[in-house]
Amino acid sequence: MDVVEFRPTPDQYAWTFGGVAPSHRIRPGTVLKLWTEDAFSGRLQRTTDMPSQVLDMTQVNPQTGPFFVEGAEPGDTLAIHIVDLTPARDWAASTTIPFFGALTHPSTLHEPLPERTWIYQLDRAAGTVRFESAALTLDLPLEPMLGTVGVAPPGREVRSSLVPDTFGGNMDTPEMKPGTTCYLGVNVEGALFSVGDGHYRQGEGESCGTAVEGAMDVTLIVELIKGGAPAWPRLEHDDHYAVVGSARPLEDAWRASQVGMVAWLGELYGLDRLDAYQLLTQVALSPLANVCDTNYSALTKIEKRLLPDAAAHGGMHSHLRSLAIGLT
Amino acid sequence: MDVVEFRPTPDQYAWTFGGVAPSHRIRPGTVLKLWTEDAFSGRLQRTTDMPSQVLDMTQVNPQTGPFFVEGAEPGDTLAIHIVDLTPARDWAASTTIPFFGALTHPSTLHEPLPERTWIYQLDRAAGTVRFESAALTLDLPLEPMLGTVGVAPPGREVRSSLVPDTFGGNMDTPEMKPGTTCYLGVNVEGALFSVGDGHYRQGEGESCGTAVEGAMDVTLIVELIKGGAPAWPRLEHDDHYAVVGSARPLEDAWRASQVGMVAWLGELYGLDRLDAYQLLTQVALSPLANVCDTNYSALTKIEKRLLPDAAAHGGMHSHLRSLAIGLT
Amino acid sequence: MDVVEFRPTPDQYAWTFGGVAPSHRIRPGTVLKLWTEDAFSGRLQRTTDMPSQVLDMTQVNPQTGPFFVEGAEPGDTLAIHIVDLTPARDWAASTTIPFFGALTHPSTLHEPLPERTWIYQLDRAAGTVRFESAALTLDLPLEPMLGTVGVAPPGREVRSSLVPDTFGGNMDTPEMKPGTTCYLGVNVEGALFSVGDGHYRQGEGESCGTAVEGAMDVTLIVELIKGGAPAWPRLEHDDHYAVVGSARPLEDAWRASQVGMVAWLGELYGLDRLDAYQLLTQVALSPLANVCDTNYSALTKIEKRLLPDAAAHGGMHSHLRSLAIGLT
Amino acid sequence: MDVVEFRPTPDQYAWTFGGVAPSHRIRPGTVLKLWTEDAFSGRLQRTTDMPSQVLDMTQVNPQTGPFFVEGAEPGDTLAIHIVDLTPARDWAASTTIPFFGALTHPSTLHEPLPERTWIYQLDRAAGTVRFESAALTLDLPLEPMLGTVGVAPPGREVRSSLVPDTFGGNMDTPEMKPGTTCYLGVNVEGALFSVGDGHYRQGEGESCGTAVEGAMDVTLIVELIKGGAPAWPRLEHDDHYAVVGSARPLEDAWRASQVGMVAWLGELYGLDRLDAYQLLTQVALSPLANVCDTNYSALTKIEKRLLPDAAAHGGMHSHLRSLAIGLT
Repeated sequence: MDVVEFRPTPDQYAWTFGGVAPSHRIRPGTVLKLWTEDAFSGRLQRTTDMPSQVLDMTQVNPQTGPFFVEGAEPGDTLAIHIVDLTPARDWAASTTIPFFGALTHPSTLHEPLPERTWIYQLDRAAGTVRFESAALTLDLPLEPMLGTVGVAPPGREVRSSLVPDTFGGNMDTPEMKPGTTCYLGVNVEGALFSVGDGHYRQGEGESCGTAVEGAMDVTLIVELIKGGAPAWPRLEHDDHYAVVGSARPLEDAWRASQVGMVAWLGELYGLDRLDAYQLLTQVALSPLANVCDTNYSALTKIEKRLLPDAAAHGGMHSHLRSLAIGLT
Repeated sequence: MDVVEFRPTPDQYAWTFGGVAPSHRIRPGTVLKLWTEDAFSGRLQRTTDMPSQVLDMTQVNPQTGPFFVEGAEPGDTLAIHIVDLTPARDWAASTTIPFFGALTHPSTLHEPLPERTWIYQLDRAAGTVRFESAALTLDLPLEPMLGTVGVAPPGREVRSSLVPDTFGGNMDTPEMKPGTTCYLGVNVEGALFSVGDGHYRQGEGESCGTAVEGAMDVTLIVELIKGGAPAWPRLEHDDHYAVVGSARPLEDAWRASQVGMVAWLGELYGLDRLDAYQLLTQVALSPLANVCDTNYSALTKIEKRLLPDAAAHGGMHSHLRSLAIGLT
Repeated sequence: MDVVEFRPTPDQYAWTFGGVAPSHRIRPGTVLKLWTEDAFSGRLQRTTDMPSQVLDMTQVNPQTGPFFVEGAEPGDTLAIHIVDLTPARDWAASTTIPFFGALTHPSTLHEPLPERTWIYQLDRAAGTVRFESAALTLDLPLEPMLGTVGVAPPGREVRSSLVPDTFGGNMDTPEMKPGTTCYLGVNVEGALFSVGDGHYRQGEGESCGTAVEGAMDVTLIVELIKGGAPAWPRLEHDDHYAVVGSARPLEDAWRASQVGMVAWLGELYGLDRLDAYQLLTQVALSPLANVCDTNYSALTKIEKRLLPDAAAHGGMHSHLRSLAIGLT
Repeated sequence: MDVVEFRPTPDQYAWTFGGVAPSHRIRPGTVLKLWTEDAFSGRLQRTTDMPSQVLDMTQVNPQTGPFFVEGAEPGDTLAIHIVDLTPARDWAASTTIPFFGALTHPSTLHEPLPERTWIYQLDRAAGTVRFESAALTLDLPLEPMLGTVGVAPPGREVRSSLVPDTFGGNMDTPEMKPGTTCYLGVNVEGALFSVGDGHYRQGEGESCGTAVEGAMDVTLIVELIKGGAPAWPRLEHDDHYAVVGSARPLEDAWRASQVGMVAWLGELYGLDRLDAYQLLTQVALSPLANVCDTNYSALTKIEKRLLPDAAAHGGMHSHLRSLAIGLT
């Protein structure tokens, strides 16, 4: 297996999906050992660092990549398997950015909520991050994930790395974790995918808009499936299938994920649309991902144990899982 | 403990929250052994029964109750503990009702989706219900829940039993299961709560609008807490706290549940609003309940294992759990 | 013509659509000379009166009525013609109610916007009301309208007089003005309609949630059309047809009004759904009504001059206009 | 005055806002005499032309431009005055594109609505376009407008010419007509604005997604104001001020336009936010623009006759109106 290691310098960060020259050309099957800077570009380091003073909002969600995958053409399916996510620092940060987040609203006449920054210390041995507040200190389990995994968008567009959509991007779902295979439809020659925005943990919905944001050491395997591009990003775990929809209002994000799962159930089991709709109604899990970004993201997820065995996308997930053994 | 048993005859069903004379007056601490008819009032029995032909849409979601709880006054908190839910029939039904459900839309120019009815056979020994379709037959785990648990609404209103709102009602969340304590704010003298709409199982979101709908034998314990009415329904399990918000669009349902949880975390741990918002951001689970009813319902849920021990609402849940022992 | 005059005393106000015994039984064709109290029940009188101190939120939008219309049955169409609206006081009030209004949001963590009350003095001779602020004083044209015109809802429900829906209610549209005929589907025996919430003027959207709210002298003629109940309230002026939809999110309110107009164009001209959709696309006016109430309201409106002559609902509007002559 | 004439050939069309090299560099004060192709790139010519067969969805809304305005820097305000819009053909087209339009919905399980194409013949002498259907033929007044007027977006993004947002773009409002001055904030050096998507007429909301789409001869004057960039596009007519907001759900589009107007009223008259909110509540007109595009667009509009005289943006509109005399 080819192995590519890449730790971008700040001038090498990408800030968009699309519109950026590739940092590397890789062959399908390549292992990537990457480093990603945190969503704040490392500028929030102390509880006294206030977003309005230290953040540059044109430099958030720095991306590592994009990677040009040889042979990838529009209509193909990129399979990105997350082998490992390891915090690259011993601390992480979260904050309230004025008028950003689910429990504030920019189109009102309110003053912004107060800015406050939280620094989480990591205890690697215990596998925890520490939430500290005036009233309460809590050690929370470390559960690393990637906020952004995306390819270049279709239709000549270039989108900010803050955006989730059909091309993946800033989906901010805790389901994007070690062991996940993410299937994304390819829109442009080479796919041009990038990753970033590591979270040491995040709740579903990412209420205040920023998770436990930290630099991350990322190990991926990237594969290519000719054809078969799904309309919306699909995730496969050992024990679940999931589809991510992104839109506003939130019901349309979730509906997109549902329609995506109806299609997937049709592919896997030959169910017609109404029978898939019925089955979904009785078995779907529906965890939210983010309700703070430019599009909201919601998942439709099904436990594999409820379904007959199947080899989604030609058994790609099992294949990647077996390749991953020994890489960490 | 007082024990009240009630199996309503069809003329005794209630069809609304509020606006109905109580079927019983009960004292706090009473055990209720109830029977609830299915959401279709038992009219869908065969796969050839089509909703447009056999359903009477003015007679759906029949309620058992309402119960007048002695001493309950506006501003009090009703605690309804679900001791047991046992399917009362060996089959259940689901269907597609024209222009009802998440993946259709009434304000379009489309013809309705085709009507189709599914009958699920129950295997009590195996604890499963059988999904049958042309392409696939699956035995799915029985996971009984109640679609509707509600009190009379505030502001002199009377709402259909299809509606979820601050008063509970048709929330359609799989979290309303045996072992759950549901806390509802009391709006009128006596609270006037009722239950119905049993589901043998349901996915999150209830996509097509109807779960595995079946008659249910329901055992509850009802308690009263003076004062402390939460703004939105709260659920407590042995291992979770949850708040249910109901509104449109879906983001507002979820935001309501989030603001409700910020309040609850404040009560439990003295967290100020911003610290609670931050903690929520990193620990919340956000499963959808329904995206098909007149209001959509969404939950904010936290695992107790992540939080310090606390005795919500004076330890009512533990108290009710201990009372429940021996009742089933 | 029968003429009924009614100036309710405070204990005679209705606070809901449905659930209230009729104040009068009237025959179709009756002229009603009514007085309506303002939305605040007259409690806001000075700029120093703050809503949180003087308002009783269980006593807002007092209704005059309801009126039982003899012969009205479910499926019939009530035609309410507004002959005249004359301010019953020389002043009116508007205010910011905490977390009510379009540019604030209850499901956030913000403190409420400041409360402020504006009193508008009426100049009857000039036909103006005076907006007074620190920076600017303006005389605005008097343009009286009724915020609420509604019948009892279907499905056994009782709704607050703050609610707009298929039954009309608190639609808060400036199009409900002298010269308007409002067509409402009848849901219960006698229709049980009421009116209230007079505005001396209001912008489209009613941003802050309260218009120039004032007591009103109201002259109506009420007629009954057997059958023909429209799905959503219809308005007819000498020069326009309009349909009012009410829902959340706002696009669904507007879509309902559009689907309603597609139906109306079909009735008037025999257009099929696609041709009506196309015509609407090129000729519709789409003014918002309210974006602050429990449901938002939006209109689809067409200028009659763009369409061939037609006699909607059997020419009822012309008939009522001719009856109205001499009544004012 | 500099005069630039430009009739792009098909290979010169721009398909995005941003990401395209300028077709011309112009000085502020330049008169542009442009030709714009219709939204379908001229591919729909007969009622038998079906979108799914003849349209290339990667080639819709062709733009004429972009124009690099010398001296324009981020934070400046571009003033684009529409001197004249004259249909460049004697016919125009409209159609139903599968799952596009307000009364259909892509995230459902419905089959698409039928495709149907309407061709409108222009009668220049009468100033009308002819709607033809099986049931009805109508001559509708010609009211030319531009669907898209936009600058390059901020944040390194490149957006499809189907998108409306803070940078203007595909707002699809009938208010973009001869006599209008459109103020847009500049995001990138040179502003890079383009225009296209001429409509011979359009209703508010653009229900089916396509107006009376036709090629257009366009005369503009372009001016530059240093600084003063508005957050959202502003329009000025001789008799109105308007702000256009674009977002989903629709309430957020309208709220953005409201907050934009609160800001404008503050600039013009020194009103504080609450007084501006109050005044807006009583005087705003709120016509919808589009409820079909990737973002919906809504306007807040005020009649100048209701307000004291003022010289918005330094009296730019009057200045441009006087320059326009003699140009048509």
